[in-house]
Parts: sequence; C-alpha cells; structure tokens
Amino acid sequence: MSVSCCKNLGKTKKAVTLLLYQRRVSSLYRCIQREHLSSSFSSSMADLKSTFLNVYSVLKSDLLHDPSFEFTDESRLWVERMLDYNVRGGKLNRGLSVVDSFKLLKEGKNLTEQEIFLSCALGWCIEWLQAYFLVLDDIMDNSVTRRGQPCWFRVPQVGMVAINDGILLRNHIHRILKKHFREKPYYVDLVDLFNEVEFQTACGQMIDLITTFEGEKDLSKYSLSIHRRIVQYKTAYYSFYLPVACALLMAGENLENHIDVKNVLVDMGIYFQVQDDYLDCFADPETLGKIGTDIEDFKCSWLVVKALERCSEEQTKILYENYGKPDLSNIAKVKDLYKELDLEGVFMEYESKSYEKLMGVIEAHQSKAIQAVLKSFLAKIYKRQK
Amino acid sequence: MSVSCCKNLGKTKKAVTLLLYQRRVSSLYRCIQREHLSSSFSSSMADLKSTFLNVYSVLKSDLLHDPSFEFTDESRLWVERMLDYNVRGGKLNRGLSVVDSFKLLKEGKNLTEQEIFLSCALGWCIEWLQAYFLVLDDIMDNSVTRRGQPCWFRVPQVGMVAINDGILLRNHIHRILKKHFREKPYYVDLVDLFNEVEFQTACGQMIDLITTFEGEKDLSKYSLSIHRRIVQYKTAYYSFYLPVACALLMAGENLENHIDVKNVLVDMGIYFQVQDDYLDCFADPETLGKIGTDIEDFKCSWLVVKALERCSEEQTKILYENYGKPDLSNIAKVKDLYKELDLEGVFMEYESKSYEKLMGVIEAHQSKAIQAVLKSFLAKIYKRQK
Repeated sequence: MSVSCCKNLGKTKKAVTLLLYQRRVSSLYRCIQREHLSSSFSSSMADLKSTFLNVYSVLKSDLLHDPSFEFTDESRLWVERMLDYNVRGGKLNRGLSVVDSFKLLKEGKNLTEQEIFLSCALGWCIEWLQAYFLVLDDIMDNSVTRRGQPCWFRVPQVGMVAINDGILLRNHIHRILKKHFREKPYYVDLVDLFNEVEFQTACGQMIDLITTFEGEKDLSKYSLSIHRRIVQYKTAYYSFYLPVACALLMAGENLENHIDVKNVLVDMGIYFQVQDDYLDCFADPETLGKIGTDIEDFKCSWLVVKALERCSEEQTKILYENYGKPDLSNIAKVKDLYKELDLEGVFMEYESKSYEKLMGVIEAHQSKAIQAVLKSFLAKIYKRQK
Repeated sequence: MSVSCCKNLGKTKKAVTLLLYQRRVSSLYRCIQREHLSSSFSSSMADLKSTFLNVYSVLKSDLLHDPSFEFTDESRLWVERMLDYNVRGGKLNRGLSVVDSFKLLKEGKNLTEQEIFLSCALGWCIEWLQAYFLVLDDIMDNSVTRRGQPCWFRVPQVGMVAINDGILLRNHIHRILKKHFREKPYYVDLVDLFNEVEFQTACGQMIDLITTFEGEKDLSKYSLSIHRRIVQYKTAYYSFYLPVACALLMAGENLENHIDVKNVLVDMGIYFQVQDDYLDCFADPETLGKIGTDIEDFKCSWLVVKALERCSEEQTKILYENYGKPDLSNIAKVKDLYKELDLEGVFMEYESKSYEKLMGVIEAHQSKAIQAVLKSFLAKIYKRQK
C-alpha cells in the first residue's frame, strides 16, 4: 500500500470518527434539550445535577476529539480514564453554584438551552480547576486517599505521570472556554478571570507549603495574618468568588464594577475555611465523614493560631511540645489545651459575628438579584456540621 | 495600637514599597533606553542579549510586586530565587528568536523602544514556559542535573514544592501578558496562542510518558509515526512555531493566514529533534557538552525507530535484548547495530532531503520578510554539531 493511499485511508477514518462524534454530541444535546422540555427545567436539584452530568459527557467527548492534537488510541483512553477518575467524582458544589447563581441573576426568567449549557460548562471548568489542584496537591502533600479512593498518583502505572495529567486538566479549561465562549463579548474577561484565580490559588498554596514544610516545624511562623493569607488565596478565590464571577460575566456584567461582591465572597470563603479548621478538631467524625488530622499534620489551622494568641507562657510551651506530632498522647494534650482555652466558645462567637457582618454587607447591596446570590451561598454554609 | 492604626501603617508601608518599586522599574526602563540610544540598538548579539537580560529584571520585579497577591517577605524571596534558578540560566535561543524574527518582519525599520521591550517580554514568556516544562519534566523523569546544576526539585528544602513552582512559572506568563499586552488588539490571540501551544506540548509529553514508561519496556510500541507525534507536539510547537507566531502577532498579522508558516516551522522542529536524537548517539561528547543516554533510557529515538524499520529478524532480536539496559555491553551492541545498519548514512540522507524540502517550501513563500525569518531559523540548525 502506498504512503498516499495510507494517508487517504487515515483521512477517511478521521472523517468517520468526526462524523460519529458529531452525531454523539448532537444526540447528547438533544437529550439535554428533551430533559428541559419535559421538566421545563424544573429547579429540583436532582434534575439540575443530571443535566450537569450530561454536559460533562459533552465536554469530555469534545476533549477526546480535540482537533489540535492527534490522539493515539492509548492516549485517548488514558485521558478518558483520568477525567472520569478525577473530575466527575466530586460533590460538584462549586460547579453547580455557577448555574444556581446565574439563575438567580436572571431573576426567575427561564434560561435558554444555550444558557443552561454554557453555565454548566463554566461550572465544569471550575470542577476541572479543582481536579487539577487536587491531583497536584495530593502529590505535594504525599496524601493517600481522596474522595474515598486512592489519590490518582497512587494508582498503578500512573505515578509521576499524574503531574502531566494535572497540567492537562488545567489546559482543558482553556480548550472548553475557547470552544464554547470564543465568540462571546466576555471571552477575554473569562480567560483573564480563570488565569487570575489560578494564579492566586497557586500563590496561596506556595505560602502554605513554605510556611508549613520549610525547614524545621516552627510554630512561631504561624499567626492569624498568615492563616488569613493562606485561606484567602488558596481557597476563597476559586471556591467562592470564581463561581459568582462566572455567572456575572455570563449575565453581561463588568467585574470591575463588582469589587464589593468579590470582597464579600472572599470573606465568606475565609469564614468557610475557619469552619473547616474548627470541624476538623471538634466535629463528630461520623457526621464529618472523616477523621481530622490537622494537629498531627502541623497545619496552620485557625485553632492553633487562636490558641497561640490566647496562651499563657506555660500553655505555649505545651503547644510547642505537642503540636505536629503523631502520637495520640500529643494530640490529646493539644485538644485538652484547646478546650481549656475555650476555643469552641471563641469559634461560636467568631461564627455569629461573621454571619452578622456578612449579612450586613449583603443587605446593603443595591441589587436584589446579587443579594439573592450571596445569601444563597451564605445559607449553604452557615452553621454547617460537615 | 488600634487595629485601624495598624491598617494605616500597613497601607503606608505598602505605598512606600510601591513607590520604591515604581522608581526601580523606571530606572530600569531608563537603563534600557540609554543602552539603545547609545548603540542605536545595534544588532550585535551581545547587545541584544544584554537588553534581553535587562528586560528579565523588569519582568521579575513586576512579578515580585504583583498587586494580585500579598507576598510575605519569605514568599517573595522564594519566588525570586526560584526564577533566577530556573528561568534566567538557559541558552535563551527561543526567547531571543522572538526579537530576531520581529526585526526581520519589520524589514530593517528601526524598532521603537516599546517594540524592543515588548518583543523581549514575549521572548521571556517562552523562556518562562520552557522553565515550567523543565521543572516538571525533571520530576517526572527523575532527572539529576539540568543546565549544569541540580534539578530544582533536588535542591534542599525544595522537593515537591517544585510542582507548585512549576505552576507559578506557568501563571507568570499570563501575568506578564496581562500587564504589558492587555490593551493590544492582538491580546486575545496571544493568550489563545500560549494556551494552545502549552496544551499541545502537554499532549506530546503525555504520549511520550505513556509510550516510554507505561508497563513493561516494549519496543513494539515504537514507530516513526509515534516518534513524529511525540516530537511534533512535545517540542516543535513551542520551540519553533511559538517564537515566530509571537513576532507575527506583534507585527499585526492574523495567525489564521499563516498556517503554511506553522507547518514549515513544525517540520523544522521535527528535523531539529531528529538531529538531537542522532547527535545523542553519534556526536563527540566533548563538542556536544554531554554524554548521550537515549539507548539506556529506552527513549523513543529516531535512531531506534529507523533501526526497527531496517532490521532483519535476527537484528531485531539483538535490539530487543539490548535496548533500554544500563550495561555498557548492552549499549555497545546497540551502537554496533546502528553502525551495521548505516544509520549515519540514513541520517545524512534525511538531513539533506529535509533541508531541500524545507528550502523549497520557504522560497515559494510570497513574503520576502517571512522567508528571511524562516531561513534564519533553518540556518541556525542545519548541519549543527551540538
């Protein structure tokens, strides 16, 4: 068989694959469409989640047939398995909240099919971003499990290839944005937004890593100010600000006019992480679904920085001697100290003050629609037990 | 001291830092300017390189005072050290070629200071991209040294934090683009270009990793087609196409009208990598500056796929038995086989045919300026010995 004949066969095969793929995508679109027609896109969470999951299949199929790369069969299978393992299995809170927020911004108007698809796609971009962070964080933290299964890099035959998979996940975000948003007037703002938030998250991770791991374990590096910086940059921007910012862009808003929205969401993100730190030590492990390990892991937790603020000289000594050590007796001594210092009470006060402050700011906002978005976020997290 | 007083002090400190920084940047700009005025930006390589290095200092200073993140002193020092270690020390060929190409596209017209600065900045973006790939590739390949010093992740107290540093390097590219190009009409194309090329490089790295490392060492997975895919995606786009594409965008060109330029540069990139594979085995290590290890590393080299194409059954057996093993005797057997199969001759023929073909395509191009850019690239690599 001549080379040019081989090439033509290759082209035909490619054309057939493309055709099959286009059919598959159209059928998925129709499926989403049917679902909405039958339920008038009822707001029930179950429907939303199933629509959301259908969009995942469309996006995944796009990526597995991206014309910018010539996949081998082996590499296409690899990416598919990697996506299903790392992107699909989360709680999807961040992603779904893009759709929720966009609906609230539209104040009860029915969303078009395109709007539903696009808000789900942006939601998935945040889920992809999260997966990218988690895959790489787990390697850096040498973690064992994630979402009830081994961390991706611990799966046989993955290993350090997981680093490149993380990079691919990150790149997929821009493939999705380019494919579905390139012609939108807000495309450039969307790309800038994802880049800015990714940068801030990586910076937060950097301070966390160099504060927690560099050199000897040294509690004197921990303070409320460093704790705030870590959680603000590492968590708040991408988990709280990003979903709302995506919805605002889709609604035609200029993000520069919404710095106040950003600030309140970042504050909410910080409050969320303080809860996380509190629950890690004080929640019932059954309710929480995991056993906290912040004390033995020498984490820069809100509890330890609050303790450091309130300790007598003698109590400080106990904290220094026992924090970040794996023995149950060390952990117990830290927990006893937290109780002695009434950190539960300190947290309760922090929680109610945060709530009041956040609600004050939210209710002062001139837009009822934006108030609704922010209140919906706050309601989801206030006094959460897990 | 009250909290608000502390805040004000903080603000004053921030304002002073900002002022000092602005002065530092202006002085650097003036320094670049002086240099150009005195030499009329003479085209000597030494001058270009020193201008280029001055721009590095400006960009680094920008990044260390990025207002999107509140650095601690410790984290600012960390980033500075990481940049100097990983970005500054390369040969800078890719970066400098943006400036060279842009000058050729301007056909002898004097560049403005802004054009010089911006073309250098884009050159540095490619150097940042390269540093990002190398930092992460070295972890994935478990490499020992890079550019004559230990790989970044092997530096004491760095370790797996290097993964996050890689991510930061990648994010810096977009900080640079946003700061200096946001108002340019080609900004969105520039961002898309860097994203597309990064994606293609990560895909190339993926096929390389899963072909070379997955499961048992199996030579039957290697072929000219897989070799071409690996080198095209992993190397050619970012090393050859990207610098020229940056220069074209700066010159106001639409990249969609230059698919032919992309194709010829990708072909040149493939030819460059084939040379690399050839030199790894056949070059004098003194001239090359390193001792090749492709054979023992079981690399999907052009030589091994050419050998596989030309082997008799018996020779194939020798190759399977000896390729990818660390003993000198195994390596020697593979080298003997390469000589038996006259791979040197096969390479010479490939080299001259590639050159003819590339020159043919280049000379058929309607633009003399673009011809000059492409010829300049080809001249730098044709018959190179290192």
